[in-house]
Amino acid sequence: MRIALDAMGGDHAPNPIVAGAIQALEKDPELEVFLVGEENQLRKLVPSDNPVISRIHFHNATQVVGMDESPAIGLRRKPDNTITRSWQLLATGKVQGIVSAGNTGAMVAGGMFTRRFLPHVDRPGIATIMPTMRGPSIMLDVGANVHPKAEHLFQYGVMGEIFARHLLKKEKPTIGLMNVGAEEGKGNELVRLTQQMFATCELQGNFIGNIEGRDIHKGVADVIVTDGFVGNVILKVCEGLFEFIMKMVGKEVIGALDQEKEKGMGALHKLINTYDYSEFGGAPLLGIDGICIICHGSSGERAIKNALGLAAKLARAGINKLIVEELERMPKITAPSTTPSI
Amino acid sequence: MRIALDAMGGDHAPNPIVAGAIQALEKDPELEVFLVGEENQLRKLVPSDNPVISRIHFHNATQVVGMDESPAIGLRRKPDNTITRSWQLLATGKVQGIVSAGNTGAMVAGGMFTRRFLPHVDRPGIATIMPTMRGPSIMLDVGANVHPKAEHLFQYGVMGEIFARHLLKKEKPTIGLMNVGAEEGKGNELVRLTQQMFATCELQGNFIGNIEGRDIHKGVADVIVTDGFVGNVILKVCEGLFEFIMKMVGKEVIGALDQEKEKGMGALHKLINTYDYSEFGGAPLLGIDGICIICHGSSGERAIKNALGLAAKLARAGINKLIVEELERMPKITAPSTTPSI
Repeated sequence: MRIALDAMGGDHAPNPIVAGAIQALEKDPELEVFLVGEENQLRKLVPSDNPVISRIHFHNATQVVGMDESPAIGLRRKPDNTITRSWQLLATGKVQGIVSAGNTGAMVAGGMFTRRFLPHVDRPGIATIMPTMRGPSIMLDVGANVHPKAEHLFQYGVMGEIFARHLLKKEKPTIGLMNVGAEEGKGNELVRLTQQMFATCELQGNFIGNIEGRDIHKGVADVIVTDGFVGNVILKVCEGLFEFIMKMVGKEVIGALDQEKEKGMGALHKLINTYDYSEFGGAPLLGIDGICIICHGSSGERAIKNALGLAAKLARAGINKLIVEELERMPKITAPSTTPSI
Repeated sequence: MRIALDAMGGDHAPNPIVAGAIQALEKDPELEVFLVGEENQLRKLVPSDNPVISRIHFHNATQVVGMDESPAIGLRRKPDNTITRSWQLLATGKVQGIVSAGNTGAMVAGGMFTRRFLPHVDRPGIATIMPTMRGPSIMLDVGANVHPKAEHLFQYGVMGEIFARHLLKKEKPTIGLMNVGAEEGKGNELVRLTQQMFATCELQGNFIGNIEGRDIHKGVADVIVTDGFVGNVILKVCEGLFEFIMKMVGKEVIGALDQEKEKGMGALHKLINTYDYSEFGGAPLLGIDGICIICHGSSGERAIKNALGLAAKLARAGINKLIVEELERMPKITAPSTTPSI
């Protein structure tokens, strides 16, 4: 199992990125990691006496697309950047997957440029795990595609259903469509067209129709389908609100305790660790021919370790083969109208 | 100050609705409330020995649009419903404001039917208070307009700025545009056009450009401008996540305590009370000629009391006059292109 890791991507790169790779290698004896970045710099970060070094390959890349740089400009002006080099490793079959905590837009754009999409997939989408009262759900797209057509959302539902069945181990995953109300006919044209596509396909038994924002954390749907604009906003709102509430709990609740302050703080930190959105270990870009995991910019060791683990798991589960087979089984559906939508 | 209250609107109507009205009347001696609903039923809920009864007017309405009923169908098939009757009281000048915890879609549709918009306002928007690390911000639209044009978003920004200045007492409120990234050029056409409008108007000093989901609770912007689809999803996601986290804190943090469980639980309940999204006392529908407050369906006494208080406050501040004056001062801006957007 060979995975390329953008060692220079992320707010804190390269130290915690390399440290996370070492942890992943220690955990998974079948894993080999291609560290993409300044080779001289990276070599210094790997202790020479660590036996995992035999499963580390250094792949030199001298440039980095900045976290806040325009993806298009960054990729064009820096041909030797770590993201482009990672995608090339995937495209040439040298690795089965790539992982980066770098500029998300550049990662997605890099994938679009390769055009290595799975058969029957028109546009890849970023899928992210959402914690809920009934265990994890998967939400997609969270930012790859801010101008989707109904066909794209439909394909996201198909891919998400496979992810939920094979990776989250849900027997018959439910699929919900993010909308502003539960009743049919609600929302904009994009969601109405998407609804019609789900209602007339093989997945109609899984499709539970519209869901609302407050349904996500209740775990009403195992797969939450939405466009990249809304999904991206949701994900980031959750991050921000989580941080806000945790600060308030620390101040108002733990602050109100006397003797058991320390005990309460310990439990709070454990809770933060469990639900920290930046530590989930990355979001797969589904629909790509190969495995691609996009990590939070603030990823630390643990997040990178988890992301490499997820990449290996997806590759081993053969998720892409399953997606292609499932989409092949679907009657070729296109949205009933081509009126420009959201 | 005369406000009409839909006494039959909400999940728990009419008892807590009427109780909330009594509380508001006790607090504000200048307030008169028109209770709209089944007069016979409502009279029984007001203790005849309470002196505030002299400031309650019963306005009979025999029908109710159900909480999950289609707004269009509900309003059409039930001409004597409480929402329509409330809007009529406003349209005929019998009251200065209306408040309802009933079917939100029907409340908005009722307002659209009256067409009593303020001069220079093309579409009203629902504004809601968001708690942040730097005090309250205002976000709009959260559901009145799921197909907005850039002009509408621009007008939301103008109205929100006035709300933030006069009601939230921010000296020079900042205005942020909800997007998927902070950099210019991000997102869809709707936000790009809206950006251009803000950048070339008198409010350019207030406009801080794009903001992301995670900026909301940091308090990065005093006014958060977004379309009704995204805003509605954000608001409901926050509600659901807040509930989810509070349950987890109760279980994992308070549950970890021994002697101080009770103290911790008390502080947690206080925190929940402070930030409970359903208890904020309603969201104004801005852009209407008159005051209209839309409350959460689950509103209890306190929420209704707060909503009546907010309605009176907005009317006394003359917010509508301020909005019209401000929009009149703006050069008449329309979006640079009319390509269909989000």
